[in-house]
Amino acid sequence: MTDLVTFGESMLRLSPPGQQRLEAIDELDVHVAGAESNVAVAAQRLGLDAAWVSKLPDSPLGRRVTSALGNHGVDSDIVWDDDARMGTYYVEMAGKPRGTNVIYDRADSAVTTASTDELPTDRFADADAFHITGITPALSETLLETTEDLLTLAGEHDTTTVFDVNYRSKLWPPADARETLEELFPEVDVLVVAVRDARNVLDREGDAEAIARELAAEFDFELTLVTRGGDGSLALHEGEVFEQGVFEADEYDTVGTGDAFVGGFLASWLDGAAVPDALEYGAATASLKRTIPGDIALVTPEEVERVVEQGEQSGISR
Amino acid sequence: MTDLVTFGESMLRLSPPGQQRLEAIDELDVHVAGAESNVAVAAQRLGLDAAWVSKLPDSPLGRRVTSALGNHGVDSDIVWDDDARMGTYYVEMAGKPRGTNVIYDRADSAVTTASTDELPTDRFADADAFHITGITPALSETLLETTEDLLTLAGEHDTTTVFDVNYRSKLWPPADARETLEELFPEVDVLVVAVRDARNVLDREGDAEAIARELAAEFDFELTLVTRGGDGSLALHEGEVFEQGVFEADEYDTVGTGDAFVGGFLASWLDGAAVPDALEYGAATASLKRTIPGDIALVTPEEVERVVEQGEQSGISR
Amino acid sequence: MTDLVTFGESMLRLSPPGQQRLEAIDELDVHVAGAESNVAVAAQRLGLDAAWVSKLPDSPLGRRVTSALGNHGVDSDIVWDDDARMGTYYVEMAGKPRGTNVIYDRADSAVTTASTDELPTDRFADADAFHITGITPALSETLLETTEDLLTLAGEHDTTTVFDVNYRSKLWPPADARETLEELFPEVDVLVVAVRDARNVLDREGDAEAIARELAAEFDFELTLVTRGGDGSLALHEGEVFEQGVFEADEYDTVGTGDAFVGGFLASWLDGAAVPDALEYGAATASLKRTIPGDIALVTPEEVERVVEQGEQSGISR
Amino acid sequence: MTDLVTFGESMLRLSPPGQQRLEAIDELDVHVAGAESNVAVAAQRLGLDAAWVSKLPDSPLGRRVTSALGNHGVDSDIVWDDDARMGTYYVEMAGKPRGTNVIYDRADSAVTTASTDELPTDRFADADAFHITGITPALSETLLETTEDLLTLAGEHDTTTVFDVNYRSKLWPPADARETLEELFPEVDVLVVAVRDARNVLDREGDAEAIARELAAEFDFELTLVTRGGDGSLALHEGEVFEQGVFEADEYDTVGTGDAFVGGFLASWLDGAAVPDALEYGAATASLKRTIPGDIALVTPEEVERVVEQGEQSGISR
Amino acid sequence: MTDLVTFGESMLRLSPPGQQRLEAIDELDVHVAGAESNVAVAAQRLGLDAAWVSKLPDSPLGRRVTSALGNHGVDSDIVWDDDARMGTYYVEMAGKPRGTNVIYDRADSAVTTASTDELPTDRFADADAFHITGITPALSETLLETTEDLLTLAGEHDTTTVFDVNYRSKLWPPADARETLEELFPEVDVLVVAVRDARNVLDREGDAEAIARELAAEFDFELTLVTRGGDGSLALHEGEVFEQGVFEADEYDTVGTGDAFVGGFLASWLDGAAVPDALEYGAATASLKRTIPGDIALVTPEEVERVVEQGEQSGISR
Amino acid sequence: MTDLVTFGESMLRLSPPGQQRLEAIDELDVHVAGAESNVAVAAQRLGLDAAWVSKLPDSPLGRRVTSALGNHGVDSDIVWDDDARMGTYYVEMAGKPRGTNVIYDRADSAVTTASTDELPTDRFADADAFHITGITPALSETLLETTEDLLTLAGEHDTTTVFDVNYRSKLWPPADARETLEELFPEVDVLVVAVRDARNVLDREGDAEAIARELAAEFDFELTLVTRGGDGSLALHEGEVFEQGVFEADEYDTVGTGDAFVGGFLASWLDGAAVPDALEYGAATASLKRTIPGDIALVTPEEVERVVEQGEQSGISR
Repeated sequence: MTDLVTFGESMLRLSPPGQQRLEAIDELDVHVAGAESNVAVAAQRLGLDAAWVSKLPDSPLGRRVTSALGNHGVDSDIVWDDDARMGTYYVEMAGKPRGTNVIYDRADSAVTTASTDELPTDRFADADAFHITGITPALSETLLETTEDLLTLAGEHDTTTVFDVNYRSKLWPPADARETLEELFPEVDVLVVAVRDARNVLDREGDAEAIARELAAEFDFELTLVTRGGDGSLALHEGEVFEQGVFEADEYDTVGTGDAFVGGFLASWLDGAAVPDALEYGAATASLKRTIPGDIALVTPEEVERVVEQGEQSGISR
Repeated sequence: MTDLVTFGESMLRLSPPGQQRLEAIDELDVHVAGAESNVAVAAQRLGLDAAWVSKLPDSPLGRRVTSALGNHGVDSDIVWDDDARMGTYYVEMAGKPRGTNVIYDRADSAVTTASTDELPTDRFADADAFHITGITPALSETLLETTEDLLTLAGEHDTTTVFDVNYRSKLWPPADARETLEELFPEVDVLVVAVRDARNVLDREGDAEAIARELAAEFDFELTLVTRGGDGSLALHEGEVFEQGVFEADEYDTVGTGDAFVGGFLASWLDGAAVPDALEYGAATASLKRTIPGDIALVTPEEVERVVEQGEQSGISR
Repeated sequence: MTDLVTFGESMLRLSPPGQQRLEAIDELDVHVAGAESNVAVAAQRLGLDAAWVSKLPDSPLGRRVTSALGNHGVDSDIVWDDDARMGTYYVEMAGKPRGTNVIYDRADSAVTTASTDELPTDRFADADAFHITGITPALSETLLETTEDLLTLAGEHDTTTVFDVNYRSKLWPPADARETLEELFPEVDVLVVAVRDARNVLDREGDAEAIARELAAEFDFELTLVTRGGDGSLALHEGEVFEQGVFEADEYDTVGTGDAFVGGFLASWLDGAAVPDALEYGAATASLKRTIPGDIALVTPEEVERVVEQGEQSGISR
Repeated sequence: MTDLVTFGESMLRLSPPGQQRLEAIDELDVHVAGAESNVAVAAQRLGLDAAWVSKLPDSPLGRRVTSALGNHGVDSDIVWDDDARMGTYYVEMAGKPRGTNVIYDRADSAVTTASTDELPTDRFADADAFHITGITPALSETLLETTEDLLTLAGEHDTTTVFDVNYRSKLWPPADARETLEELFPEVDVLVVAVRDARNVLDREGDAEAIARELAAEFDFELTLVTRGGDGSLALHEGEVFEQGVFEADEYDTVGTGDAFVGGFLASWLDGAAVPDALEYGAATASLKRTIPGDIALVTPEEVERVVEQGEQSGISR
Repeated sequence: MTDLVTFGESMLRLSPPGQQRLEAIDELDVHVAGAESNVAVAAQRLGLDAAWVSKLPDSPLGRRVTSALGNHGVDSDIVWDDDARMGTYYVEMAGKPRGTNVIYDRADSAVTTASTDELPTDRFADADAFHITGITPALSETLLETTEDLLTLAGEHDTTTVFDVNYRSKLWPPADARETLEELFPEVDVLVVAVRDARNVLDREGDAEAIARELAAEFDFELTLVTRGGDGSLALHEGEVFEQGVFEADEYDTVGTGDAFVGGFLASWLDGAAVPDALEYGAATASLKRTIPGDIALVTPEEVERVVEQGEQSGISR
Repeated sequence: MTDLVTFGESMLRLSPPGQQRLEAIDELDVHVAGAESNVAVAAQRLGLDAAWVSKLPDSPLGRRVTSALGNHGVDSDIVWDDDARMGTYYVEMAGKPRGTNVIYDRADSAVTTASTDELPTDRFADADAFHITGITPALSETLLETTEDLLTLAGEHDTTTVFDVNYRSKLWPPADARETLEELFPEVDVLVVAVRDARNVLDREGDAEAIARELAAEFDFELTLVTRGGDGSLALHEGEVFEQGVFEADEYDTVGTGDAFVGGFLASWLDGAAVPDALEYGAATASLKRTIPGDIALVTPEEVERVVEQGEQSGISR
């Protein structure tokens, strides 16, 4: 039996080497990335038995994605499509004041037509937990329906549903997102939301704790995780609030930090850890991710545990 | 006044370095390529005053294209679109038996919605010649209409219309192509067609000369160019047939060879050269192109002339 | 049930980019390679359910290997060793007269201590076929014993044993090799041997057919495959001889060609194809491999079938 | 009519990747750079119609330069020289304590023989503004005369003359520079000078404002800009002083920051902005430049405006 | 006569570009590094006549090492071994919290069998000073004996013996190291030890000065250098203590900093400088090293002197 | 005592990776190259004790050159110049019909001012042989005088003088070259000349043997070597003619082939081999060079001997 199954889009991430500008590129670094597959990889690497379900073009580009997940032992269960296109996105990374800029080129990708009836639904019934993000229902009408179906299906089989709001302003406006997400929330057991999204998209007010309490009360979440960027994260579980700071990192590539946090948290929590321990484990995973090129938390349990125990040491181990 | 105006799509061409496989890529080389813009660049580099008209996304990716054409002094006259996507394609280059494989990702690109009324139509009226290929009308219904409009418009203003069949089997089936192309041919002054496309798409039989004579008779072309790959090319002009062999090349990147031939031919012919001289000039340009990475004929008039005069010498000039 | 299980060493292959010399390197390309894992990958990619058993250091370098096999979906069943070193080798590639040179740095690698009792022996009992090469028993006394054990074990469970002589002059002298290999041959069902090794190592004389007949008679092989480099291959099966030429290729990296041939052959033959069809399938796989960087036959069944059907065409597919 | 014309040398900038040392290089990154062409590019990108006049070798190296400016739409008006050499310089970039080191190899480059009579003097008469720096007259006697001629010519045609002192200690000693520059200043309308150069080269004392007032009084500048590195800049205009701080940046490549400031300032001021607004626009442009590889301010008006409005935010836009 | 001779292992250092993880590498940067050869290079570059004695495989890999030292003019006196392997190590560089990780692959390398009788012992008798580190005796029993022999031999010929403790936890446990090192110390004239190693390995207590005084008293060192990482260094010489801070650096590659410090110190001290001046010279060398890729202090005397005089300035020199 | 001393210019060779065009370069590969230093390196690598005398700028660029020669153990005896520039040249490599193109940027380089009185003249008096090429006297009036002086000096000390005509059409016209060279020939013992240069520059007629006999008769050469490109070489020695074919090679970089031939020939002949053996050794060296990136014959005696013995085999040695 799979511990964790995720469903969503994984794309080719194309980014200029160094801090070059897209307008002037002669070469692009290629990574594979997607919120749900990132979480599956992190969880698998950190001890869970994870699977990722999706739909991809039956082409070298589609195989580039399953090959990347196969690196980490994630079991990809794919609906292969002969005709559809591969989702891609461009990332131009920079510090202030330029900032990192993402250009999506994911419209009409294979996954946008993934309907429940073509997916291996047993996967969702048989897993301990099912993870999906707010990106998936934003991608197409079909995917919104599929998201609803899968959350319902998981609920019917006692599969814990984990939903990360993950608002993307380049996909939909806040009001649309709010309406859709709040329709989905009743099926969700574990909510993950950035405090910024809770305010701007879900129209909540107050500090992270207030927001967590309000959302949990309204939607009856089993567990509510609120992330606050550099200010760490907070969990509300059975009425109790747990706070966790961030482990500092010399940043190299910050894309995928949130997914690393969720993957690390789930690897620990689904393995039976208490919520505060799982929070710390997620924070350590996220911190390591920030030092690693690409979206994926290419870490080992030993490394995460060392950060948990020793904190932010650096130096040379030889 | 512009000597040559072309209209069509220019894309980002993404290709793995060396002979790596797309399925295993970690980086991609980026070039800018499109049949009509390739011709504009070759013609401009070889002495014409060339312009390229198109529609592009208003993004760093769109600017990547105009920047690439600006390298060579081509005047890009662009309709900028805030929302549409950038056309891209992947090329995995290999020799036999693998062969070079192209994966298009150009559906719904900005240019596919380019209607005549938003284009700078003066450009086509004011130029000596207008070049377009069979790729453009294959991309969308809108572009088919625009192609018809522009050919008609050019004809009304005594702009010589040059049409390169350039059949792409991954865009449309032969029967559709034939029907569409033959509707366009009456507006065409100069036809360029590969003998293979003449047979497989236009259903013509016989050798290159027979095909040229049959097509010219049926559609009243002023000039008919038939290319035969390694067997060189043939021109039918005012009833007379001229043949031209290929200049041998140590091949490095063969994509864009046909466009280099047409660009070289037009640079010479529109400058007043006789047809056989222009054919030879085009063949020399095409030969040089085969030694150059990317789709573009990055050559000078001096280099083309040297090949025409001295043939296929190699060695070190120092 | 697994179709094919292989056992042997997989190493980091370190090679200078282009044709640079090792003496002057500033960077090295890294591939993962090993005769038996190469065969497993080719077979898996071409439709079999393949597993690879080995012993690796429990380090990022060891994981680099399983990650590479995971790319292709091969199931790695690994004994992880906390202390042992990773086998590596350096390859300096060049044409004539320099030739390609291999420097092994594989002494005392993890796998050299792999004894039968620590290996997952079920794997060998449960598979349809077991593939191993003459490299493995050459690596250590322990591995010679393990090789004997595994061949015996496979034989006891009706697992077809496939043995590729794969003589490596930098590992052992011909006389030692002959003595050892001929002790192992009685347990072998399918022998693969280069005609050159048959002559220089096994001291056989005559042409490929004579050698095949002599070896098959002496050791009672079910199937004897003799490879002849550019002259193709020959199979002796139930007294009948089948010959197969090579498909020509524009060579890019020839290392791993023999493994591609075996992997392709087995993918076809274990799937039920007749010997001559499997030979042709293997030859097509080997031909494609020669165009691909790295030791691995990064091909699809569709590509192999296209070569079988259409031969050595090149050109651009677009 | 051109808004801004600049005249000076543009060179190939050769720099080791990363922080490697020139003494140990195996490859060099190539950029095109020159103070006056940098300003032209920044101004063109930010909305002006800019031209650059110079003299270059008629070679692939010379075309490398015009190609680079063509990227950004700058109109290069070049005197091509069949024999002269291309100016180059080497930059080894490093932080403290090593520091960034420049090695010029620009002696006897094509531009050093550019006399007024071979230049397209209409360009300077017809532009709104003419920009040149103190580097140009330092390069040769001929260029000193040409600088004088062009400043006079511009003055005669109501073209605003902008002169950036840009002292280079590797080109001439301070005393020579002072003597020459002060002979040129009477023809200058807008002076740009670093406070450090004002002190060390022009022998001025006091703070930036005192220096600005003294220079403006002595040479009757319409506008005097004094830059102070990390302490921002100051403008004296019609007796009024305006100060502008710097926008902080995560630095990647600081070469060309001053030119970006001037280019941004001129794009805004020549477009009609008030001096303090233009100063802020220049500061934002300079800040963005510091995040970008190469000497050129590869920015858009939208990006500059965002920095002006929102300051130094970073983060991921997606 | 040679000023400084060193003896020890030099290895190929293989490191992923950027901050990539070894588990995911496709290419490795190659440097040559070893504590004693690093010191020889730094000393030679800074004015001494330095030689390095070692044993290497007679292969392109061995020549890669002498070639690297030949770059800097170091005289390599090598025992070439036809069979032995090349020592290598992998370095994965990262900031906090990941830290830089070293994986040694140096067991059974050529140098581990280097016995005194095969070495050019004149080298040690004829030099002013002999430098060796605690790494060398940790590598094999043979090398421990050779270390003892060479220290004795040097002592007999009035060659100053310099011993850097350089404890490597991945080579031996602290207790073993302490026992061995303290047997060697009586032959040592100049001891270099990190305060951390003095505490953890040599079991000393107190601050750096106390440790220096205790060690000097016990083993009668002529000079005792204690390094304290970011807190600088301290020398005890003829009863007097000298302290030296660090020069701050924008770090790029910190591996080899300690060797640069020792090399710089020796270049100055052996040339006749007073201890505090030599300390400062060593600190400046170390600071520059931190900005340079690879283990080697690729610096000039002029650069070191500039840092000594001007401190940590950065900026652009042009 | 040195076996071979050479004098001439060594430059930075800057070449685009792959077959890219200089007009479009973003990076350049850097090699160190010069006819006389190439010969010194080849000779040193193949067993002679070789030195190279020259004049270089005292800069990282000058040290880049001595560092490159130090790689191979060549003893560089350099006059360091604080001010002069470094000679560079650009090479754009391509096959037919483009051909390889060299752009020199070597005017006024440091070596052009090297006068006899500043050079270490003992070097030339003490060596067995002195090698120089026709490039050196073509570089400046001073170098022509120095060439005359050094040839005379060598002659006075029984140092064998070896002169390779090495005509460079981009340095001087044939008539000038002929006049100068024929003034130098009386001091020459061993002449090396390409048959093409003998015809075009020295105005000789007939086949290689006729030319050798005519030149030897006229200038009393001890040994006359005539190279004929793909047709091999010919030596005239004591009235006897020896011919040598070429060993075929898979070419990668042909620049420096002639120098490799001369270096190989001298390594063998100065070591006492008979002329035909030395010719064959030179041909083998040249053949290997053609497979190696850069101008330098990065080969070992073992490799050259293997080619001499086994010819042009390729394949994988493992």
